[in-house]
Amino acid sequence: MIKVATAECFTHGHIAREIHGFSQGYDGEFGPNYNLLNGIPYDLSVVCGIFAPTLSALQKVLKVDPPEPLKLIRGIKVYDEENDKKVAVIMAKAVKDLLGANIGIGTTAGIGRGGIAVSTDEYTVVASSGFYADITTHDSSRLLKRQECGIKKALSIFVDVINDDWDKLMEYDDVYVLDK
Amino acid sequence: MIKVATAECFTHGHIAREIHGFSQGYDGEFGPNYNLLNGIPYDLSVVCGIFAPTLSALQKVLKVDPPEPLKLIRGIKVYDEENDKKVAVIMAKAVKDLLGANIGIGTTAGIGRGGIAVSTDEYTVVASSGFYADITTHDSSRLLKRQECGIKKALSIFVDVINDDWDKLMEYDDVYVLDK
Repeated sequence: MIKVATAECFTHGHIAREIHGFSQGYDGEFGPNYNLLNGIPYDLSVVCGIFAPTLSALQKVLKVDPPEPLKLIRGIKVYDEENDKKVAVIMAKAVKDLLGANIGIGTTAGIGRGGIAVSTDEYTVVASSGFYADITTHDSSRLLKRQECGIKKALSIFVDVINDDWDKLMEYDDVYVLDK
Repeated sequence: MIKVATAECFTHGHIAREIHGFSQGYDGEFGPNYNLLNGIPYDLSVVCGIFAPTLSALQKVLKVDPPEPLKLIRGIKVYDEENDKKVAVIMAKAVKDLLGANIGIGTTAGIGRGGIAVSTDEYTVVASSGFYADITTHDSSRLLKRQECGIKKALSIFVDVINDDWDKLMEYDDVYVLDK
């Protein structure tokens, strides 16, 4: 059984719920919203999915010390894309280690396309959502679009990682890999 | 500003996202799905929303020692209704304390109507979702219905708690209050 844990900001916990719904065999409205996990021949368990929009959630739950945000909106951290990617990596690694999971997924997006990280014990795959938005504008339709792109991108990378499919991982135009 | 933290099982993080969407002023598909928070004259912040379906999430993230579950499904805790209510209280208090929040919300449901708890520094309101389901049957439509009832009930109690509206709190047929 592959244990998965997520620490999510702009994806609002949807990634955890998507993998959970798939792993439990739920269908209809209670099941997965995307078809990206269909056919994965693995036994999965989402041990925990943490929606961590604020700086204090990262500090108090994940016990990490992230970079200083550009600003805070009601405690919500706002980074540029470069730091979002760094923080997504910190979140993915921290939540994996905290839960003793095999795979950790981290997401965060302030101003830019955001950061997505999928960590195993050996490496971390880093990407953006591919869609630009700015959390400080409160533009719901753009934030929704960035969220949907981020969820799909993260799930797609997650599938490639558990399938150990490096050819597919190298096909994304904005993916890079960090060693442990 | 009222800081809110949730630790959710059968409500899958929807309560945190609902309050977050409202507090951020998001609209459309990105905003709240229910109209239960409209008109609350308070500045809210969701500091963290933890989807904690497994026993190990409670132990490793919330640092609590819950009762022994009836069974585990891929690590997911299954309780009867009596213990779900006890565990929801443990979750609500633990997540409130962990995040230094003003209000903590806990939810969990195995076999029965589930448990919902809304904790302040002074007291905890405990209820069920009002709808029976059994997680071990994997009946998605019943589990969805219980989830929707649980989200609405929790949000409704949350509003009554922050409005300090004891008349409304006493109108539910299955609510009781624990002192600190």
